[in-house]
Amino acid sequence: MPLPLPPYYAVIFSSQRRDNDDGYGATAEHMLELAAAQPGYLGVDSARGADGFGITVSYWRDEASIAAWRAHADHVLARERGRRDWYQSFTVRVARVERTYGSFQHD
Amino acid sequence: MPLPLPPYYAVIFSSQRRDNDDGYGATAEHMLELAAAQPGYLGVDSARGADGFGITVSYWRDEASIAAWRAHADHVLARERGRRDWYQSFTVRVARVERTYGSFQHD
Repeated sequence: MPLPLPPYYAVIFSSQRRDNDDGYGATAEHMLELAAAQPGYLGVDSARGADGFGITVSYWRDEASIAAWRAHADHVLARERGRRDWYQSFTVRVARVERTYGSFQHD
Repeated sequence: MPLPLPPYYAVIFSSQRRDNDDGYGATAEHMLELAAAQPGYLGVDSARGADGFGITVSYWRDEASIAAWRAHADHVLARERGRRDWYQSFTVRVARVERTYGSFQHD
């Protein structure tokens, strides 16, 4: 995923899913699309293993764009559903990306 | 994963695995054990999906502990093998965790 040079910001969302779906997949997809349309959005990476533990890192221009996305009404509702229905546990960390190294593409 | 209060540092390693093993599993496990024994290590989260895309975030007290781990001989060798054999692509980002919010544990 090509990103601008640092500094920029990362929101690191680590979560353990519960053993259900109940709309999770559709909402997760909608959130990715909606996030990508927000000012200051730079990109996202996401991985989840068979054990239900996942990490999603979204990248943002600055703290203001993170705060605006956090306040988006659809995102607020999705987070409420996440707490209630979809996640056993999660942690959100906001970090300032200082530098990248080792970006690599095999021949 | 309980961590101290911010600030601390995160190394965000996003990678696409190639379609082989050839020692990857044993080395990955060894690297996790070895990292956990380094000064300044705070913890690690890791997830990889069925498509081979994974994210590992390791947490460190400061930049000096990241630099020391990066220079560890076994880690240098493992990275060389990673480039040559195990990864199709990867990116490493170093970020300063400014704050956490939303840490949540379901009843």
